[in-house]
Amino acid sequence: MHTLLILSRHADAYRRLIEEAALAGLEIVGAAAAGRVDIVFGEPSLIRDALAELPALRWVQSTWAGVEPLLDPALRRDYVLTNARGVFGGLMSEYVFGYVLAYERRIFEKYAAQQARRWDPSPPGTLRGKQIGLLGVGSIGAALARTAKHFGMRVKGYTRASESCADVDRYFHGDTVAAFAADLDYLVSVMPNTPATRHLVDATLLGALPARAVFVNPGRGTTVDEDALAEALQAGRLAGAVLDVFQQEPLPPDHVFWRTPNVLITSHTAALSVPADIAPVFVENYRRFIAGELLHYRVDFEAGY
Amino acid sequence: MHTLLILSRHADAYRRLIEEAALAGLEIVGAAAAGRVDIVFGEPSLIRDALAELPALRWVQSTWAGVEPLLDPALRRDYVLTNARGVFGGLMSEYVFGYVLAYERRIFEKYAAQQARRWDPSPPGTLRGKQIGLLGVGSIGAALARTAKHFGMRVKGYTRASESCADVDRYFHGDTVAAFAADLDYLVSVMPNTPATRHLVDATLLGALPARAVFVNPGRGTTVDEDALAEALQAGRLAGAVLDVFQQEPLPPDHVFWRTPNVLITSHTAALSVPADIAPVFVENYRRFIAGELLHYRVDFEAGY
Repeated sequence: MHTLLILSRHADAYRRLIEEAALAGLEIVGAAAAGRVDIVFGEPSLIRDALAELPALRWVQSTWAGVEPLLDPALRRDYVLTNARGVFGGLMSEYVFGYVLAYERRIFEKYAAQQARRWDPSPPGTLRGKQIGLLGVGSIGAALARTAKHFGMRVKGYTRASESCADVDRYFHGDTVAAFAADLDYLVSVMPNTPATRHLVDATLLGALPARAVFVNPGRGTTVDEDALAEALQAGRLAGAVLDVFQQEPLPPDHVFWRTPNVLITSHTAALSVPADIAPVFVENYRRFIAGELLHYRVDFEAGY
Repeated sequence: MHTLLILSRHADAYRRLIEEAALAGLEIVGAAAAGRVDIVFGEPSLIRDALAELPALRWVQSTWAGVEPLLDPALRRDYVLTNARGVFGGLMSEYVFGYVLAYERRIFEKYAAQQARRWDPSPPGTLRGKQIGLLGVGSIGAALARTAKHFGMRVKGYTRASESCADVDRYFHGDTVAAFAADLDYLVSVMPNTPATRHLVDATLLGALPARAVFVNPGRGTTVDEDALAEALQAGRLAGAVLDVFQQEPLPPDHVFWRTPNVLITSHTAALSVPADIAPVFVENYRRFIAGELLHYRVDFEAGY
């Protein structure tokens, strides 16, 4: 018999979805039974606060991709941590290409013309033939590459070592960031938050982009040197930025981005965890757990993803 | 020897592209040599005015999909008319899904929150699982269906008879317009302008749509009963409309659409003819012309497409 505690703002939806899956040997309990809980499913920020009161804990399944709250070296690491992966590609594609198309099609300018009751026959741009660069080509990057190809774009990918996505035309690794950035129309970061990705998007990388380029960040705020980005935008050395994530969230009221030109801010909503998408990740991993198999999407506490 | 007259605002670009193709037995001439011109390539509105002065005319290749200016029964029809097809699918997809994603992702609302320096964590929508209905499934409709499937949508198609596109889940014909419209999240019209499609989008069809639906029209203005559309939007029986084409263009300054809520107006720019795309249509048809083969995309003057 296994005992599951669900710690999520969507706990009711998750409980219903897991009950519908009728999993063998699983009891769902409340916090009062914390002493015998061996499995926790939920949001890392809520789980963090409960870690000290779960003596029987063996496995945590995060509903999020990002598990930063659980990576603090001061916290226990005597359990298996798995995160949510492989489910955000579709939403991320809708986010990135929604904004990229808004930019190409000049949706805001067209709307401004309309508000002035002005017939505006100025031609919009097209994605076809444009070049997109993906910082990170995991399951999300691969989904973005596939959508980019659907729209006839050229695709560059920057990864630590992997070159497994066939929709990427050219791969870059290591200290070739400037060659990666050259001639990009769009730069998209979907890097996880790790020591190696901290401030990867810095003045050097931004300086290697063409002035026409637009930066889109639905990944992690920590990958960006925010001062360098604001400076590049203010100086017109970068055409625009679409930012979903920030070093501090909510973005503080006095942050420079609120008054930086050509920035669009989307308040960490690019790919929200939807219970109907995430519950199946838990269900599949539970089946593996009771079968004694390796779990999917296990997080390395040291590497950070 | 054949004699070509180019009548287009982009005549220089077309001349250069055709010269690069080095077509056998083709001389490109100016209007002064109209008397011996047997082929005209260009914009229907310009060609219309020249028709009377082209005694040797045998073939007209339009740079546009729409050839209305040449369909007036008072004009001569003693030549082969071909239009541009098969080249607008990509741009139309960018237009339709640019606006559909802007709507799902609440891009305008998010921007309004940003202008108020407000962190707005409200969740956006998603295309996945939503249903799109295509009025017309020719080459453009097929491209839209493919993009819809890429984003996980369900696809209905309304056609005269054809059911050839595998990306359409369910087909409708004839007087089943209400069944076609039921439960659509998005309705897109890519119908040509013919007597049979006039006011196809009328109060009946609009009344059969759910109130949450958004209508997108990058096709032809004549297919829409504009008064019925404005009424449905004003009454909140339709969530929105994205309109590229109108019965009168430019849209008159006093037209009701300028002051109708939830309308986006894009001034007939959804899929502009780009010389690099259209010239190859002429080049391929010229090869067929001199070989005595049937030309691609021949227009039936009676049917109107």
